[in-house]
Amino acid sequence: MLRIIFLLSLLFALSNASVQDFCVANLKRAETPAGYPCIREIHVKASDFVFSLATPGNTTNIISAAVTPGFVAQFPALNGQGISTARLDLAPKGVIPMHTHPGASEVLFVLDGSITAGFVSSANSVYVQTLKPGQVMVFPQGLLHFQINAGKTAAAAFVTFSSASPGLQILDFALFANTLSTELVAATTFLEPKVIKTLKGVLGGTG
Amino acid sequence: MLRIIFLLSLLFALSNASVQDFCVANLKRAETPAGYPCIREIHVKASDFVFSLATPGNTTNIISAAVTPGFVAQFPALNGQGISTARLDLAPKGVIPMHTHPGASEVLFVLDGSITAGFVSSANSVYVQTLKPGQVMVFPQGLLHFQINAGKTAAAAFVTFSSASPGLQILDFALFANTLSTELVAATTFLEPKVIKTLKGVLGGTG
Amino acid sequence: MLRIIFLLSLLFALSNASVQDFCVANLKRAETPAGYPCIREIHVKASDFVFSLATPGNTTNIISAAVTPGFVAQFPALNGQGISTARLDLAPKGVIPMHTHPGASEVLFVLDGSITAGFVSSANSVYVQTLKPGQVMVFPQGLLHFQINAGKTAAAAFVTFSSASPGLQILDFALFANTLSTELVAATTFLEPKVIKTLKGVLGGTG
Amino acid sequence: MLRIIFLLSLLFALSNASVQDFCVANLKRAETPAGYPCIREIHVKASDFVFSLATPGNTTNIISAAVTPGFVAQFPALNGQGISTARLDLAPKGVIPMHTHPGASEVLFVLDGSITAGFVSSANSVYVQTLKPGQVMVFPQGLLHFQINAGKTAAAAFVTFSSASPGLQILDFALFANTLSTELVAATTFLEPKVIKTLKGVLGGTG
Amino acid sequence: MLRIIFLLSLLFALSNASVQDFCVANLKRAETPAGYPCIREIHVKASDFVFSLATPGNTTNIISAAVTPGFVAQFPALNGQGISTARLDLAPKGVIPMHTHPGASEVLFVLDGSITAGFVSSANSVYVQTLKPGQVMVFPQGLLHFQINAGKTAAAAFVTFSSASPGLQILDFALFANTLSTELVAATTFLEPKVIKTLKGVLGGTG
Amino acid sequence: MLRIIFLLSLLFALSNASVQDFCVANLKRAETPAGYPCIREIHVKASDFVFSLATPGNTTNIISAAVTPGFVAQFPALNGQGISTARLDLAPKGVIPMHTHPGASEVLFVLDGSITAGFVSSANSVYVQTLKPGQVMVFPQGLLHFQINAGKTAAAAFVTFSSASPGLQILDFALFANTLSTELVAATTFLEPKVIKTLKGVLGGTG
Repeated sequence: MLRIIFLLSLLFALSNASVQDFCVANLKRAETPAGYPCIREIHVKASDFVFSLATPGNTTNIISAAVTPGFVAQFPALNGQGISTARLDLAPKGVIPMHTHPGASEVLFVLDGSITAGFVSSANSVYVQTLKPGQVMVFPQGLLHFQINAGKTAAAAFVTFSSASPGLQILDFALFANTLSTELVAATTFLEPKVIKTLKGVLGGTG
Repeated sequence: MLRIIFLLSLLFALSNASVQDFCVANLKRAETPAGYPCIREIHVKASDFVFSLATPGNTTNIISAAVTPGFVAQFPALNGQGISTARLDLAPKGVIPMHTHPGASEVLFVLDGSITAGFVSSANSVYVQTLKPGQVMVFPQGLLHFQINAGKTAAAAFVTFSSASPGLQILDFALFANTLSTELVAATTFLEPKVIKTLKGVLGGTG
Repeated sequence: MLRIIFLLSLLFALSNASVQDFCVANLKRAETPAGYPCIREIHVKASDFVFSLATPGNTTNIISAAVTPGFVAQFPALNGQGISTARLDLAPKGVIPMHTHPGASEVLFVLDGSITAGFVSSANSVYVQTLKPGQVMVFPQGLLHFQINAGKTAAAAFVTFSSASPGLQILDFALFANTLSTELVAATTFLEPKVIKTLKGVLGGTG
Repeated sequence: MLRIIFLLSLLFALSNASVQDFCVANLKRAETPAGYPCIREIHVKASDFVFSLATPGNTTNIISAAVTPGFVAQFPALNGQGISTARLDLAPKGVIPMHTHPGASEVLFVLDGSITAGFVSSANSVYVQTLKPGQVMVFPQGLLHFQINAGKTAAAAFVTFSSASPGLQILDFALFANTLSTELVAATTFLEPKVIKTLKGVLGGTG
Repeated sequence: MLRIIFLLSLLFALSNASVQDFCVANLKRAETPAGYPCIREIHVKASDFVFSLATPGNTTNIISAAVTPGFVAQFPALNGQGISTARLDLAPKGVIPMHTHPGASEVLFVLDGSITAGFVSSANSVYVQTLKPGQVMVFPQGLLHFQINAGKTAAAAFVTFSSASPGLQILDFALFANTLSTELVAATTFLEPKVIKTLKGVLGGTG
Repeated sequence: MLRIIFLLSLLFALSNASVQDFCVANLKRAETPAGYPCIREIHVKASDFVFSLATPGNTTNIISAAVTPGFVAQFPALNGQGISTARLDLAPKGVIPMHTHPGASEVLFVLDGSITAGFVSSANSVYVQTLKPGQVMVFPQGLLHFQINAGKTAAAAFVTFSSASPGLQILDFALFANTLSTELVAATTFLEPKVIKTLKGVLGGTG
């Protein structure tokens, strides 16, 4: 009995150390450069550390593909953990178009099907590989890369990033799906205005 | 023609920028606190960015489980990328015993079967969940955690870490599979010397 | 007089730079992954930068030892400084049981008495040394380590950590002082259920 | 039309990723060790990313020089970007006196005139150079350094720092423009009390 | 005399501290993820900390513009300092085409002329501004951005980055100036093969 | 027996993970911005993790004080651990003169005697406290600070830093113990040339 009493006071003393093992995001509060404020540990449940990427994304769209993010905004337990997740689904002929993640490296693990993936380095070198299930490819931070279905069946991949907020800039959307003027796009990409206007039409851009 | 000449001189000038997009490890050279020296970019091939975790690990062992690492030592392209990988295989009744990764958070994606996974926080709170294929669980850096097969069929998972060198300290090996004396283990764990000696016998420890 | 006027406008201009030399924690506000919000500099006093570890902790307990933390929760001026402190007291036969700090390396300086300290690496190598007053030992981040009184008199040490929130996970408490079920502990540690139940009894765990 | 519908659902899905490209500071909220909370992206305007250092600082003062900071406090878009700016103006005989930036390295680009700049290393080595327009000098983090007008005309420089909050500690102000007692200044600098009191008189210090 | 002797022994003792104020790169040695090995301090000269960006780059090329980098490869003293430099020159109608820096934020200071600069966020928002001499614009890490001469005279800017190796990926070169096949470019950008082949022709790409 | 065989293959497999728990410095190799290359783990001994600061430094010198560093150069096991150590000894009237650590915060623990310590912030605020044994004071990174013996007996302190290479710039040595010309010192500190020359004489400076 005495031991228990001794112990409890010890436990109490040490629990005052109040360390930060995790910091589940309070998404209602303003973000900081290091992530969101934490919810109080007393409100954290085991299920907060679990997120489902079991359901394939809807690939009935212009790219026959879907990216389902499990970033801090969807999976608040990732806040401050330096890692995040996503699921890629590619119907036959599906394409995750040329894009970058400004704030993270990416690791892709093929779940199903066959995927041709590649990136271009600052030195303009091209690194392309066709991957089978169980193969992993790493894409260095911030470089243009893509994934396309290399087979005749649906393909899927689980991807993780070296940041809770990796960012995602899709090239075509950045160029053609906003108000950046045709004149500026033409001047900075060498594309013909006619080509730009056509893609703006398809992708919903103006100007 | 003139354009091409103009262009080539521009390309040449810019390629002098000589940036570090990636740093594929030269494992023959001494590591530094930030990772290995890079091999020269001219020797880097597209296939260097790919690693296979397609083959299940051999689970015919004492834990009916296997961890197949894809850390920087196995997958040199991860050097400096802040991320690494591994594959877990759990035969029926398989267990990845209580362990920590001293230098990284972990994200686990269930590929097959059902896995009960959990971790214990600094405040001694327990966070356990049973996961199905497609579910993801995050384990904060440095905390004791485990995975066990929760079903009757083989289970597998793809895991990633927020560091190229996450570390892996398996509790039973740390306590019972080395030369740490029975006296010190007893004094620092409250286990009976007899219990310790038995486990040292099973796990190959001495002292 | 003119000089003073010139000077004062200069001082005023430069004080607009409003830099962050320190960030004394406002513990009433929610933490972020990088620490607590700062209290306003105008409210910071010189005494906020001082903390006392002069009083030995109470070692009348099950481990004949005490850890007195001076982490950010006790010593708010450490917020954002990347360092924290603690005091260890070990009565004769006292033991700081096997534990880890998930988020920091540790440096221990022996104040009084003699302490046997050690850690186990990921490669299961054992590093144990017996230390005298004035000796320093470093324990790498996240690895299991311990300290025991190696003499017949009280021992004490001042320890610092490479983070304001190093964390502290005590192995026995993580395994035996919470609701983690005997079945899961047995499965993940190879300990016999009877051994586990006994320690749960001593340490206040259930399940 | 169908394509547009497909596209819009895709755009909507991806915009849920809610990444952090930037974090324009909300200066009304308490700072954290990693910077200020962000204002909401919807309130961010293009002009927030622009700051003017076009106007020379007022050099009619004791040092015939001016530092115009463009740190996070003046230029909130720098929050979390790891970089900040300032403008130096030096009338003939102007001097930016010996100072340090506790939290950042500095790069100085000479705009006009000629500047003699230098720093002293921990090993007490002296690195002094006289710079012309278009020349760049780097000053390592935290070391004492200075800039003086080396010509007969006004000089100016644009400087950047490797942190949004580099800090600025001007030696003379730290020693002579506050309440640090003459006794403590004398004891810690070897300067004569008379010398200290004179400079306190000029610089507005007391004690 | 005694004082000097006392002093010299003190100086000698302290110089053993052997700290790292700077780490001028030895470019002949293999890089690591944190930069190059340092040359020995004894070989470092004051002039190593100076680099000239005084000479305008040659703008007689396809983009009527030039980027002159002062990254660690050109200016070895930047190694480990977390900052780097470059000079932009834009003849009338000159354009720095759409590009990213995968590893750094950028700050641009206009030296001469007028520059229209902009970037696109992950949310596809467009931030464009026209800048005059003395104005500064910040471009967040990894996002597509551009600069074009907005006036009728030559324009120039001094830019700095929050990394010694910021990287530089020029969109058109990444898409059209290498061996990435027309088929893959078409599939991942929605551009017509004819458009791609034309630009490959201009920019020297194949496939 | 079978179990042992199973186990050994498991141990073998896992040891291939080859993680970096520590990186004991090879001081004979060139440093990098992140520290020294590691010696091979097979050559690391338990005693490498221990360093002695038991012996008081020699205070028979001009400042009646001594700093005994235990930085990475003296204690190679600190390499990459983000922490370092030192011992301060202050004879009666001893002074650690005004100095900065450009790369680290400092925590000071008083071992013996009484110490008056203080620092000055970027805002020129003064934070001074007199400390007794067992009291701890934190000094933020890069700010000018000092310690003086506040009693009539010898005082000592154990200090740690938030970096393996904190740096140490002693103000008087930086100003008066090198070749920085009297003219430049006068111009950048407002001290009279006569005062400077006197101190250069005492401290061994020239110019």
